Amino acid sequence: MLRIAPYTSVLVNGVYWSQEFPRLITLPDAKHLCEPVVAPWLAPCPGAPTLPHRLVAVCDISADLDGSIEFTVDCTTIDNPFWIYDPVHHTTHQNGLMAPGFLLCSIDNMPTQLPRESTHFFGELLLPHIYSILQSDAKKSMDDTHLSPEVTSAVITSNGKLTPGFQYIQTLRQNNAIQSRQKAGVPMAEARHKVLLLGAGFVSGPFVEYLTRDGEVKVTVASTVKEQADSLANKYPNTVPIHLNVQEASESLNAVVKEQDVVVSLLPYHLHPIVAKCCIQHQRNMVTSSYCSPAMQALHDRAVDAGITIVNEVGLDPGIDHLLAMEYIDNVHLKGGKIESFVSYCGGLPAPEHSENPLRYKFSWSPRGVLFNALSGAKYVLDGKIIEVPPGALMSSAEPVRFLPGFALEGYPNRDSLIYQEMYGISEAKTVLRGTLRYFGFAETMNALVKLGMIDSNSHPDFHAHGPDLSWRKFVCEQIGKSEDTLYENVKKELENVVGSAKIVDALEQLGLLSEDPVDKFDSPLDTLSNYLSNRLKLGPQDRDIVILRHDIGVRWPDGKLEKKGINLVCYGDVGEQGFTAMAKTVGYPSAIATKMVLNGEIQGKGNVLPFTPDIYRPMLTRLNQEGICPYES
Amino acid sequence: MLRIAPYTSVLVNGVYWSQEFPRLITLPDAKHLCEPVVAPWLAPCPGAPTLPHRLVAVCDISADLDGSIEFTVDCTTIDNPFWIYDPVHHTTHQNGLMAPGFLLCSIDNMPTQLPRESTHFFGELLLPHIYSILQSDAKKSMDDTHLSPEVTSAVITSNGKLTPGFQYIQTLRQNNAIQSRQKAGVPMAEARHKVLLLGAGFVSGPFVEYLTRDGEVKVTVASTVKEQADSLANKYPNTVPIHLNVQEASESLNAVVKEQDVVVSLLPYHLHPIVAKCCIQHQRNMVTSSYCSPAMQALHDRAVDAGITIVNEVGLDPGIDHLLAMEYIDNVHLKGGKIESFVSYCGGLPAPEHSENPLRYKFSWSPRGVLFNALSGAKYVLDGKIIEVPPGALMSSAEPVRFLPGFALEGYPNRDSLIYQEMYGISEAKTVLRGTLRYFGFAETMNALVKLGMIDSNSHPDFHAHGPDLSWRKFVCEQIGKSEDTLYENVKKELENVVGSAKIVDALEQLGLLSEDPVDKFDSPLDTLSNYLSNRLKLGPQDRDIVILRHDIGVRWPDGKLEKKGINLVCYGDVGEQGFTAMAKTVGYPSAIATKMVLNGEIQGKGNVLPFTPDIYRPMLTRLNQEGICPYES
Repeated sequence: MLRIAPYTSVLVNGVYWSQEFPRLITLPDAKHLCEPVVAPWLAPCPGAPTLPHRLVAVCDISADLDGSIEFTVDCTTIDNPFWIYDPVHHTTHQNGLMAPGFLLCSIDNMPTQLPRESTHFFGELLLPHIYSILQSDAKKSMDDTHLSPEVTSAVITSNGKLTPGFQYIQTLRQNNAIQSRQKAGVPMAEARHKVLLLGAGFVSGPFVEYLTRDGEVKVTVASTVKEQADSLANKYPNTVPIHLNVQEASESLNAVVKEQDVVVSLLPYHLHPIVAKCCIQHQRNMVTSSYCSPAMQALHDRAVDAGITIVNEVGLDPGIDHLLAMEYIDNVHLKGGKIESFVSYCGGLPAPEHSENPLRYKFSWSPRGVLFNALSGAKYVLDGKIIEVPPGALMSSAEPVRFLPGFALEGYPNRDSLIYQEMYGISEAKTVLRGTLRYFGFAETMNALVKLGMIDSNSHPDFHAHGPDLSWRKFVCEQIGKSEDTLYENVKKELENVVGSAKIVDALEQLGLLSEDPVDKFDSPLDTLSNYLSNRLKLGPQDRDIVILRHDIGVRWPDGKLEKKGINLVCYGDVGEQGFTAMAKTVGYPSAIATKMVLNGEIQGKGNVLPFTPDIYRPMLTRLNQEGICPYES
Repeated sequence: MLRIAPYTSVLVNGVYWSQEFPRLITLPDAKHLCEPVVAPWLAPCPGAPTLPHRLVAVCDISADLDGSIEFTVDCTTIDNPFWIYDPVHHTTHQNGLMAPGFLLCSIDNMPTQLPRESTHFFGELLLPHIYSILQSDAKKSMDDTHLSPEVTSAVITSNGKLTPGFQYIQTLRQNNAIQSRQKAGVPMAEARHKVLLLGAGFVSGPFVEYLTRDGEVKVTVASTVKEQADSLANKYPNTVPIHLNVQEASESLNAVVKEQDVVVSLLPYHLHPIVAKCCIQHQRNMVTSSYCSPAMQALHDRAVDAGITIVNEVGLDPGIDHLLAMEYIDNVHLKGGKIESFVSYCGGLPAPEHSENPLRYKFSWSPRGVLFNALSGAKYVLDGKIIEVPPGALMSSAEPVRFLPGFALEGYPNRDSLIYQEMYGISEAKTVLRGTLRYFGFAETMNALVKLGMIDSNSHPDFHAHGPDLSWRKFVCEQIGKSEDTLYENVKKELENVVGSAKIVDALEQLGLLSEDPVDKFDSPLDTLSNYLSNRLKLGPQDRDIVILRHDIGVRWPDGKLEKKGINLVCYGDVGEQGFTAMAKTVGYPSAIATKMVLNGEIQGKGNVLPFTPDIYRPMLTRLNQEGICPYES
């Protein structure tokens, strides 16, 4: 269908359809058909307005609800024959024709308004049978009345029952009902959608808020910390808290997964495969906001065989970054342009007014990942050359970035930017870099922590929980080869030689890392530091966070002109109990929107699905805008 | 009173009072009495809680409403004898005793609950007159009844009239009523307060919103642009728009001023004296958010003679900066500390996410002042030495400031910081600097505009409205001594020599100042550039602004310790039609709060009043907090 439909302006559908046939146009197909038509090679035709897309109207004569045309979910009427179906918002506008989308006409009571010629024709055919019809008596059984064979075989019901020739209808209706509901997996007994959310951390708030908004979805929130799940359930309607550890309680996981329509994992990424296997077993759809890891990729074929959808990478980064990149890249390609460079940075930070500390960073959850990442290497392409940053050198590779000059930012590359040449379909790009944003000064201080061995994740005897008291100063002295009794000023002087400047020594001092207070030890320097900083640099209740995402894209147009475009997303967190952090909003809302699209049948791909195609990224971006997540170009 | 009252814990007031006497405790006095008591020289007394202030209770036996105790505005009752009066919020809490403030007891119906001894004593005195009293007949005139002289002289009213001996009561009541209302200047006919607001610019929104909130105040908004006044009147209740040009229509100004209780001028500062003279003539109070200029200072004695209050400097800067500085400084002095350094920066900017342009600045009103300021000089004290920045060198004096390191800011000094040593009472301070904040990069580009003569406010033949077309490029070529036909790249090269770097040339290019497009000419380079930039760098409807205010204060405590304190105010504007910009909120709300305090009688000083005393700055800061203008320390 999608070979022909894109060239269609008006589609008149009269095919017979039943559940075992593929649909003529699915919901995702409809999204494709509403994409803008770019045909610069066609001369503009005066008087003919440029349409946003080619398809103008669908006249669904078959009028099979939820049938061959999947978005014919209700029939239009003679009084109000034309509706608009808007695939991007997946809504039907029954009044007025100004809404974006296609005209839909699907009136199912035409027979009562037949043209006169038809009336004559049908009348003449019917007349010979009238006498026989008059003999019929609804109080008697069909066998006791003597009707002509034509009339007998035309009677559909008699005495409240289907006649033998039409008993297939009962079976047909039952089958239809089952299969139609199975699309979204809703059990027969209860029409409401059911979603299992694994993880009740701070990102879950916006997720549950979005899904429970319209009363159509029941969310079961599972957490190893039951209080967190309870607190969500107390705040939102139709929300049920349960205690569940997916690693330990596979029985319970199985029992709860098979009751769901969609299972959403906001757990750490290494737990997703456990959940995915369970979803495959019970044929339940799944959504995650994490990278589609090799372990998840390995499950693709099994997921396809099970006929389930696993949507991945629908958070912020990965997530919104993909949506914005792909929308822009597809549009450039459609217009014949080439992507010459793609540089993208993203970061979750304290809002600048709450950035006053030596790291210019605050933590709203465990700092371990942020700290540990400082040790990794990275590779990216710059002007056609592959640049590799060796492990341990990442922090020294940080550079100021000045795209939004009111922020004092620096950036350093993520692990592997090279794969995005292929994933984004921009093999032509000479520069491809995806990186992390911090406030200027972060990397310098982090680099000192790396040099001092504080990011080391290996067990260290000093940090043994039951060993003698340890202060950060004692550890620092060891690291720089000074005795513990060295005069404070001499420690600072020697430290300056190691970390490179007095300013950085001041930063370490302000972080309390030259203090003699004993620290809570957690086996390794990294885990101990992680715990220490999570308390010392906690995002407080009056602090807001901010999410900054920026794509800088260089486009070479067919005329040779180079255009530079900046795409920005800057989202601030709310202050106070009732609000959400920027990170919660920018991860929770896209995950929830994708989940709703799976429930609605708007995403139907099988196996692992990424939000790289317009049928997914366009509706998602539109709906994110409605949640106040509004990117802008510069 | 304020010599003795600060040492009082419980005040029992029984004085006779009438309008011609000074009050025992005014509303501003009450604010002074609720200031914290700092007495570190007194040893803490175990079991005796530290009170927030010394005064615990006022028992107002006189119970003259709005009388000698100005905050006794209503009597307490036998059932509910104790209220709390909160001077900071100027509110009375009638239920519960947990609110901050003083206890107030003022029951005016004690005679019905006399102790038994009194009943006997009064009864015995009354008994001899009972027979005479029984003769009285209310239907007859006093002259026709024969009462004893004691009873006759005790009758206050007879036949609906005051008896001759008590007719003074009528006059007394009238006088009291007139004088009591005159306090706030409310005309007899209408109890509601009346405020005239001069100026209907974007700052006026929050001002009118605040004052019209409780329905007690009628605001007349006067503007030379009637549509702006109309738009405010359409948005807020009790708001009347009028067209008025204070410079041209002194008759109309007089007519409208004399109808008001308070006149508020949000006009350019040079127009305030015109308004002030009119207020003096008609004895009306006045409020402005501007510096108390020499012309206003010169009117002080006349304002005192007229008995009116003129509150100045209650905007953002000047305004909130004073409130925060004085609160902190007074507190340090009270605790025996010395201010060693006071460095304060303030700026209104686009929010950092909307800062992407070569000036890193956007304009929501005429840029003329911001541009012209680049030419002025400045002086301040640094480590005891007076530093003078000569006119024209201000932009080169800009330096990065890093107090909130997430923002990329720079600062340069304001005109004259020296006067604040005296104004803030910090003659001990070795460093005093008040400066302006911009995003880093502003000064560099502005400096180039200065060098190119674009900030020149003198008429220039090139810019004559009816002269030949002028492009910025043509003007730039003239300024750098190049012919108009010079190749573009050569212009850029020469320009680089003049302004110092290719980066600044790029900035000028991005601002369109090397373009050949003709510009709208306004006589001088400054006015032409001002008009040009007001369009090119306009704060758009989707852009937010931000206000950043920071005091860095160094305190030397009696023990010799130096403490560094940062006081921050970061306020973001709202996006969208219904919201206010940060600048409007931080100027409009303090002006409105000060106006309300004048209307309430909470500010009663005569002549020019500045918000430097705790009776003004404490309530203002508390109420600004309620409007979401919340400073924080770091």
